[in-house]
Amino acid sequence: MELEAMETPCLVLDRGKLDRNIAAMARRLADRGVTLRPHGKTAKSIDVLRRALEPGQGITVSTLKEADYFFAHGITDLLYAVGIAPVKLDHAADLIRRGARLTLLLDSVEQAQAASVKGREHSVVFPLLIEIDSDGERSGLLPTDPRLVTVGQALQRLEGVSLRGVLTHAGGAYACDSIEAIRAMSLRERQAAVTAAEALRAAGLPCPVVSIGSSPTARFAADLTGVTEVRAGVYMFHDLVMAGLGVCAVEEIALSVLASVIGHQPSKGWVIVDAGWMALSRDRGLADPQRDEGYGLVCGLDGAPVGDLIVRSVTQEHGVIARRGGLPLRPEAFPVGGAVRILPQHACATAAMHDRYVVVDGSSAVLGTWGRINGW
Amino acid sequence: MELEAMETPCLVLDRGKLDRNIAAMARRLADRGVTLRPHGKTAKSIDVLRRALEPGQGITVSTLKEADYFFAHGITDLLYAVGIAPVKLDHAADLIRRGARLTLLLDSVEQAQAASVKGREHSVVFPLLIEIDSDGERSGLLPTDPRLVTVGQALQRLEGVSLRGVLTHAGGAYACDSIEAIRAMSLRERQAAVTAAEALRAAGLPCPVVSIGSSPTARFAADLTGVTEVRAGVYMFHDLVMAGLGVCAVEEIALSVLASVIGHQPSKGWVIVDAGWMALSRDRGLADPQRDEGYGLVCGLDGAPVGDLIVRSVTQEHGVIARRGGLPLRPEAFPVGGAVRILPQHACATAAMHDRYVVVDGSSAVLGTWGRINGW
Repeated sequence: MELEAMETPCLVLDRGKLDRNIAAMARRLADRGVTLRPHGKTAKSIDVLRRALEPGQGITVSTLKEADYFFAHGITDLLYAVGIAPVKLDHAADLIRRGARLTLLLDSVEQAQAASVKGREHSVVFPLLIEIDSDGERSGLLPTDPRLVTVGQALQRLEGVSLRGVLTHAGGAYACDSIEAIRAMSLRERQAAVTAAEALRAAGLPCPVVSIGSSPTARFAADLTGVTEVRAGVYMFHDLVMAGLGVCAVEEIALSVLASVIGHQPSKGWVIVDAGWMALSRDRGLADPQRDEGYGLVCGLDGAPVGDLIVRSVTQEHGVIARRGGLPLRPEAFPVGGAVRILPQHACATAAMHDRYVVVDGSSAVLGTWGRINGW
Repeated sequence: MELEAMETPCLVLDRGKLDRNIAAMARRLADRGVTLRPHGKTAKSIDVLRRALEPGQGITVSTLKEADYFFAHGITDLLYAVGIAPVKLDHAADLIRRGARLTLLLDSVEQAQAASVKGREHSVVFPLLIEIDSDGERSGLLPTDPRLVTVGQALQRLEGVSLRGVLTHAGGAYACDSIEAIRAMSLRERQAAVTAAEALRAAGLPCPVVSIGSSPTARFAADLTGVTEVRAGVYMFHDLVMAGLGVCAVEEIALSVLASVIGHQPSKGWVIVDAGWMALSRDRGLADPQRDEGYGLVCGLDGAPVGDLIVRSVTQEHGVIARRGGLPLRPEAFPVGGAVRILPQHACATAAMHDRYVVVDGSSAVLGTWGRINGW
């Protein structure tokens, strides 16, 4: 079957680009002697993750549903990298009792106490990392915060929990405006984690795991001394945000949304397609006024950008395609019933709107479909 | 079970508010003697739609998957209100052959010809509406466009298709800054549809259906002369956008996302919860700088807003709650492990991130769960 015959909108994944993106990141971290712990939150698909993993290699997840799903498919070493909510501890204990090596995350004594209560109740020991704040954007303790050692001591003292180390995520890298800024963020990310690990060790506490990572900082990390593992997820697919940051080329983006042309507004130079925010997500990425790519960049069926066209606006099931900057567009070049592929601003958000990948490899021939999960 | 015991994040629907919103819209249109054709695109749930329908009443859908789903649950009169892509005609024909009264939409001779070819191939007749542009925002022909009659004549002449009337959607109502502006948009919506219907009739063409609607214009429509049906969907749930437009009160919003507190940043006055854009969507609604509600408005477990708190930023599985305007917040009021309910900016977009509703009615007691669908 060819892409032209697929009902639209649907999510297209180029397997060749995927494999090359996976290989590039694996090689980069192998060269630095650091373990990669791929993040399953972008792909949420065992078919994708299998291509990124060596036997026994662990992964990162963003929900316990991902943990259930990947564990059911044979991946046993799982790191749930969102601060644990006490209401999820029964679920986490169930995974551990069934054989998962599931590590959890926290940044407070309250969470340590809640985990201890549930660990004892279920006769399991929760392995725990302490979250460190390296970018000031959301969770975590500063590496200099005295509460870091307090939390570590609580984990060491309490039953049902086990201190395993520290974790940080420099999500602030996505706000960087240059590769130099990403390099600086990468150094800051490493520094925060290593400083926190040293503070725990200085207090006589164990800290075997020093986990850092985001796809941008993993790409440009110059120094990983003292780091034991790097997490990254978007690198498998890449997207326009990553291209805008200089992390990848547009040609390396493996994900796109196939859409059909359903109409025109000739006086406005608009082409209307059947992919709106429901298929593309509402994520506008960096929305850089210097290089606005709206809700996605328009490509032909071969996956190559055509004529600087973007999705300028979206409603639930409609996208309006126009030339960037409002320049004229000849809608006749996009007849009703024709198809386009739209590169996503944010691969995680766009993929989350779909339940499967239509797999191609460098052409419009469909090789099959791969499932993915969503939800909690 | 109580909401406190639910794994978070999850989507909560207040059944009492839902029923009151449904009754208010039904009463309003009954008073005006116009048929309501509820839109399934917001709820995507038979359990919700059943509460909004009299026996035999038709609905609107935004995807053929919704058509499949609602037809499988006994709703036979279905209007697919997105311009038809030729690649979907086999699917549409299958629904009709199985007994659905499925009406399609188009605005070009090319679509009419494609439908005719497929109608003859499958031995069905596709009932079709012509889309009219009443707000200049996406698809449709202006009521004065000579192509309107050309398309109508093509539908009259070709086999396998049947001209049923005209349809317009004044989505521009969502950009209105006052109730007066919504009233004006409502008049413009009606005027566009009625003028188009008259143009078809003047050319000797049939036009039994004159379909208009959006939740804001349906709420404030003063004159519906010549209109045969009104479509609306968001009115069942309402959301912060609708409240911002003056279409509903915040207290009438029936939908919320339950989230757990997983941490604090005391120096910033932040509370961190486990609902990010994956649970709330990236839709910031009107993002009115005069009344920024970020990614949602924070309520207690009873569903009432507390202390002017908003979700100021989101990543995939994290939301950062702060007081609007950056004023200080005492995080101690939100202990780790506590729960909040977050009112959505855009009910359609938030609901789309979930596969079920946790149903309550004015309290935190869980009455059950209702399924919903997504995708295509």
